[in-house]
Amino acid sequence: MKETLLYEGKAKCLYSTSDPDLYVMEYKDDVTAGNGAKKDNIAGKGELNCAICNVIYEMLAQNGVPTHLVKPLDNLNILVRRVEIVPLEVIVRNVAAGSFSKRFGVEEGSPLRMPILEYCLKDDALGDPPLNDMQILALDLATKEELSEIAAQTMRVNELLIPFFAKSGMRLIDFKIEFGRTPDGKILLADEITPDSCRLWDAETGAKLDKDLFRRGLGNILDAYQEVLRRVTL
Amino acid sequence: MKETLLYEGKAKCLYSTSDPDLYVMEYKDDVTAGNGAKKDNIAGKGELNCAICNVIYEMLAQNGVPTHLVKPLDNLNILVRRVEIVPLEVIVRNVAAGSFSKRFGVEEGSPLRMPILEYCLKDDALGDPPLNDMQILALDLATKEELSEIAAQTMRVNELLIPFFAKSGMRLIDFKIEFGRTPDGKILLADEITPDSCRLWDAETGAKLDKDLFRRGLGNILDAYQEVLRRVTL
Repeated sequence: MKETLLYEGKAKCLYSTSDPDLYVMEYKDDVTAGNGAKKDNIAGKGELNCAICNVIYEMLAQNGVPTHLVKPLDNLNILVRRVEIVPLEVIVRNVAAGSFSKRFGVEEGSPLRMPILEYCLKDDALGDPPLNDMQILALDLATKEELSEIAAQTMRVNELLIPFFAKSGMRLIDFKIEFGRTPDGKILLADEITPDSCRLWDAETGAKLDKDLFRRGLGNILDAYQEVLRRVTL
Repeated sequence: MKETLLYEGKAKCLYSTSDPDLYVMEYKDDVTAGNGAKKDNIAGKGELNCAICNVIYEMLAQNGVPTHLVKPLDNLNILVRRVEIVPLEVIVRNVAAGSFSKRFGVEEGSPLRMPILEYCLKDDALGDPPLNDMQILALDLATKEELSEIAAQTMRVNELLIPFFAKSGMRLIDFKIEFGRTPDGKILLADEITPDSCRLWDAETGAKLDKDLFRRGLGNILDAYQEVLRRVTL
């Protein structure tokens, strides 16, 4: 099914297929942090993320949020719709953590009075700098209509993910998603939602179940991701 | 008239007066760049900035934009209304330059398709990080009503400043302003508008007439600021 490798990212590869409207996305075992400054290869991570994201995207689709996922192919590969990625990292924060805590001097774990939507320019060479709506429009990264569609879909994803994770004892602290444009100009959730791209804390113990374990050298991500998969398939 | 020194900033001091609703603001000759990393004291700079800002604030007031300025007292001191500063640096960009160019990889001098409004948290210890509207609200830095008042006043200031500088041959590239809350809760333009806080380029030659001369070690700011004063009082 896979034809040409079109793009290799830090955690996934993208291949063309015989159908110009479909791509194959392959999850990799590579894990990176700090914009690639810290790297490892953890056998089994790709499969876990693939399985976790498939469950989440299925749930979102059932609740009216379309995604690029067409169907899973095997343990590492999924068939996806062809989209052009909007070069924005779209971040939602429910609780202060990570770069937000560091940047604004807010203690990690402090609840936020409202979910915060943030954008970063998806540009490794520039260090993915944060930007606001007017900067996005002035830099021609998205149209006003696309940006309001992205904002609306993102807040909807957050509203669906919070209870979805909560029912198996996980707190959704924050997450990063990306969107694509379909050939007919629609905005579609693309990329992944996995413990690589979310902060998930055990609701009882506060234990981290996400990539911060790797980022901060706190433990084995494989066990944590396995536990996330177990819970989301409960 | 001055009583207690209430606050000493990088370029100005603030004193109480016998009237609790009035303060005296004194311009200093100190000039700093890079969040205080580069410093100098340039005799005469304070007087020039005081004179330039008075002319600008007078023009803004005549055009319906209220400011904290009550009246000039002497060459360095002005009487101002007591306000509580909203801890935001409010930035408008008409042309790419400075941190915007660096952060987003856009060549300095590139026109922007629309004026861009940016906010930074006014916090030297945190390096004045950029933030967006939702972060401002979540961090309780301003209310939604205050923020929309700040945005509206700021865009109005830009609309007034562009032709004001243009008529004496200067291009307003970008500027930074601050707002305060009066004791009765109104939002009022405070702080300064001077070549310390604006980028001004000669419309013909592109010569810099602002603090970038100091920031980048390109020349004497006193001559440039003198020229700005001469032009704004034409």
